[in-house]
Amino acid sequence: MGFPSDLTIARGANLKPLDEVAAAMDIPSHLLQPHGDHVAKIKLSAVQELADRPKAKYVVVSAVTPTPLGEGKTTTTVGLGQAFSHIGKRATIAIRQPSMGPTFGIKGGAAGGGYSQVVPMDILNMHLTGDFHAVTAAHNMLSAVLDNHLFQGNAQGIAPHDITWRRVLDVNDRALRNIVVGLGGRLDGVPRQTGFDITAASEVMAILALSTSIPEMRARLGRIVVGYRADGSAVTAEDIKGAGAMAAIMVDALRPNLMQTLENTPVLVHAGPFGNIAHGNSSVVADLIGVHAGDYLVTEAGFGADMGAERFFNIKCRASGLVPDAAVVVTTVRALKAHSGNHRIVAGKALPEALLAENPDEVHAGGANLRKQIENIRIHGVTPVVAINAFPDDHPSEHAAIAEIAASMGVRAAVSTHFSDGGRGGVDLAQAVAEAADEPSDFAFLYPDDASLREKIEIIATKVYGADGVDIAPAASRQLDNYERNGFGDLPVCIAKTHLSISSDPTLMGAPTGWRLPVREVRASVGAGFVYPICGDMRTMPGLGTHPAAHEIDVDADGNVVNLS
Amino acid sequence: MGFPSDLTIARGANLKPLDEVAAAMDIPSHLLQPHGDHVAKIKLSAVQELADRPKAKYVVVSAVTPTPLGEGKTTTTVGLGQAFSHIGKRATIAIRQPSMGPTFGIKGGAAGGGYSQVVPMDILNMHLTGDFHAVTAAHNMLSAVLDNHLFQGNAQGIAPHDITWRRVLDVNDRALRNIVVGLGGRLDGVPRQTGFDITAASEVMAILALSTSIPEMRARLGRIVVGYRADGSAVTAEDIKGAGAMAAIMVDALRPNLMQTLENTPVLVHAGPFGNIAHGNSSVVADLIGVHAGDYLVTEAGFGADMGAERFFNIKCRASGLVPDAAVVVTTVRALKAHSGNHRIVAGKALPEALLAENPDEVHAGGANLRKQIENIRIHGVTPVVAINAFPDDHPSEHAAIAEIAASMGVRAAVSTHFSDGGRGGVDLAQAVAEAADEPSDFAFLYPDDASLREKIEIIATKVYGADGVDIAPAASRQLDNYERNGFGDLPVCIAKTHLSISSDPTLMGAPTGWRLPVREVRASVGAGFVYPICGDMRTMPGLGTHPAAHEIDVDADGNVVNLS
Repeated sequence: MGFPSDLTIARGANLKPLDEVAAAMDIPSHLLQPHGDHVAKIKLSAVQELADRPKAKYVVVSAVTPTPLGEGKTTTTVGLGQAFSHIGKRATIAIRQPSMGPTFGIKGGAAGGGYSQVVPMDILNMHLTGDFHAVTAAHNMLSAVLDNHLFQGNAQGIAPHDITWRRVLDVNDRALRNIVVGLGGRLDGVPRQTGFDITAASEVMAILALSTSIPEMRARLGRIVVGYRADGSAVTAEDIKGAGAMAAIMVDALRPNLMQTLENTPVLVHAGPFGNIAHGNSSVVADLIGVHAGDYLVTEAGFGADMGAERFFNIKCRASGLVPDAAVVVTTVRALKAHSGNHRIVAGKALPEALLAENPDEVHAGGANLRKQIENIRIHGVTPVVAINAFPDDHPSEHAAIAEIAASMGVRAAVSTHFSDGGRGGVDLAQAVAEAADEPSDFAFLYPDDASLREKIEIIATKVYGADGVDIAPAASRQLDNYERNGFGDLPVCIAKTHLSISSDPTLMGAPTGWRLPVREVRASVGAGFVYPICGDMRTMPGLGTHPAAHEIDVDADGNVVNLS
Repeated sequence: MGFPSDLTIARGANLKPLDEVAAAMDIPSHLLQPHGDHVAKIKLSAVQELADRPKAKYVVVSAVTPTPLGEGKTTTTVGLGQAFSHIGKRATIAIRQPSMGPTFGIKGGAAGGGYSQVVPMDILNMHLTGDFHAVTAAHNMLSAVLDNHLFQGNAQGIAPHDITWRRVLDVNDRALRNIVVGLGGRLDGVPRQTGFDITAASEVMAILALSTSIPEMRARLGRIVVGYRADGSAVTAEDIKGAGAMAAIMVDALRPNLMQTLENTPVLVHAGPFGNIAHGNSSVVADLIGVHAGDYLVTEAGFGADMGAERFFNIKCRASGLVPDAAVVVTTVRALKAHSGNHRIVAGKALPEALLAENPDEVHAGGANLRKQIENIRIHGVTPVVAINAFPDDHPSEHAAIAEIAASMGVRAAVSTHFSDGGRGGVDLAQAVAEAADEPSDFAFLYPDDASLREKIEIIATKVYGADGVDIAPAASRQLDNYERNGFGDLPVCIAKTHLSISSDPTLMGAPTGWRLPVREVRASVGAGFVYPICGDMRTMPGLGTHPAAHEIDVDADGNVVNLS
């Protein structure tokens, strides 16, 4: 008998009623809105009602630069949250909502794994309470208002080739990447080229994740730039009268969703912005609630520490005003071996044989990546902790190698077997995190608001990515000038680059040096509140593969979803 | 002080907890799934659990041929449901879920009006429990699987120009009617022309409305035809392995939504298929539950009796196996005056002055339409009742004129002031409906399953529409032959024509004679289970106007939706 599948474990879960889960957070039932049997939304009045309670220690979970397989960051986040109860502490977990596109594509569901899962996984991975659908609807409402604005005479004078607002759907559909709309007759709109992104890539999703209240979300929606006039001035959602309708569509979505883990640890699941063209973090509202609901709030940031954690510190914490107390860097043996540069790992394919052989030297060889990511935490004044996420094929000598790297930098490290053992497998990690969080936080943003956009890019590229400098293409330079003229210069930047390397070249492993960051284009999510330079090919609409999960997922006669992994 | 707005009345509602509303239907709370504070889904096990209880009288609400303004059919349905409690009876109401497209377009919300409303109207009109979003997601999942099938080599041999499956969004967006997808590079899909319909026009919506169980819905999804091979044979959702994923997405959506009226009458809100290219009725599942939950189940059918009621009898009752006991024909003074042919009414414009003057003769002049629609009920063996939906500008002599027309045909009629007075204004109507429903039902389908598709079209055209015959264009004729060859000949037909005339010409008022029905094209919704001949221009994706509701709808600082009417 092998290790049971995630779905088998999930089906065996002993779920508590959500008012009991909430009660463990001291959240009274009048603040809950049940949605089906296993999810509740938390009303926004909770933010005010809980504000005067003691603040939990605020812990962000990041990682080394991941392989294409992922390093179990969500699983570790869930496992750590569960582990706190095994050391007598109350923790709340905050994660992003999974996107339905990948669920039906190559990836399958995203809910942690093994004995560290958020349940029920079919509800988590499909619809949940409809927040993604609301983002889709609000985004496309603005698209319809925009195309109607063109059709009704284009009173704002939007330059047809400088329209930046597209449409979104939460599905992997490559055929929608580049389309021509408005064909047919005179009454069928204005013909023009555009396209669809996946919903997670919508600026509305980033707005959902960064807003602190309804009025603030409303204002952000109004600031969305849909395109530019010939003189370079921005046209906003407010200008074309689309922002109010979007807000009406988004009201319910701003309430965070409460679920639980296999061990009944409370989990706030809310928003799911992309990790490259957006900041890749779960919602500010969820954290504003969760940070007053126990001893620890464990929140996850997308991709490696150079990506998600940097944006957590400089974009999300800027929006929330919250100060982090510790940062976990999830590390796996296979990731550091991959960072040795000796192996090639491809998503959907079996691991190379050589990667599985005991080889602590190879772990050390890839250690540069871990060292750099630890530094990337420390330059923000936050105490890092290395989580060694144990896999069945690991060897103790390899775990020891990771621990040695951490020790050489004076960083706490702990092996965690939460996947196989649930929360009790994460006790050492929880202890280490608790100690780290008790150290005084010296948190600081990496750059001030009033640095120029070019300075902000330069600071992140050189200090976080280890680049020698930045090369800005002429077109990108013109865009930066125009954004400064439009008054977007105070915004933080979110550099869209590959997540598979600290550099902008996905084939460079470890901690690459001697390279320069090429900025080909710069875009602005003014409503969400960041400018994002494009460094490489950023795919914002995935496709389905030869054998997508969609071909296998089905229902049984009782309405249970089957073949969702 | 004028009559209060719908929203003002709705905000003053005294809502009951939904378990109390359900208890009035003898539906125990274990069958409920709360979704927020004001909606609950009813679990599908209710169908079995309630099946042995006494059957309620089953009343369908239809209408004369409507003006572009509508004749208050939903309002009358709600008012009649409320009225039953004023004569000591328990009624349940079943209506379609409104589409978000029109809510943000010209129409505003759809929840009844005045003192006969379903509440809360903002929840009803936006998202509800996400069923429309599930339809959108399931439909577009199949679209993605289909385009991926083409991209991966088109193993089924689908003829590129005979692809019938499009995409859907619940938004009024004319620019999406005709689009080209798959542009870009080699990895961005196969270029081809296609388009988006509004979600209510999706075959998945019709399937949601007609399915009786999860396994039956699963089978219907598998039978969806996405296109044809060069030899004319159909390629299904099952063939391209898309149906299971759709079913997984649709599981929750098949549970009907329970809400309440201003007077706490239970309302099942479920599914919202188009009334021209689809059958325009709320769900079978809702009726299978509601018909065992009180003394009366009042359900609404779209447009006039030639449209929604004909499909109610021949498509919906075929699927449900339920037998109707009475049919209400909602009639207004202004509609019959319009059917005199003396006036032109345009949606969004003020009524012509002349229409408001007291003129019972003009009501009589338009009476042919009412007579024909009464006949259209009677040919199905069902007892009609004329509901005179009173408007403030009506004159008693004009109500009397409608009553005279009804009396001349031996049909019960009652004036109803439910808009101004709520349920007590509908007491006479409720009494008349109760008497009619006590008469023995002699219900029969209009045609047998094994009539040919051409025979079915001919029967509806001549018996229901009053046409002299049917003219089938050569292309349509070839399609009919191909459908019979593919085995679709046993399906009922759903004739897609204008709802503004009993004929296929929207300018012909009253009960037109001396005309022939032109069938230009025939399409097949094989999963939903009907073939639909196209007779006229059927718009399946609306556009926004010069001043759409989307420009005005907004939220206040507390998150209340404002300017939704």
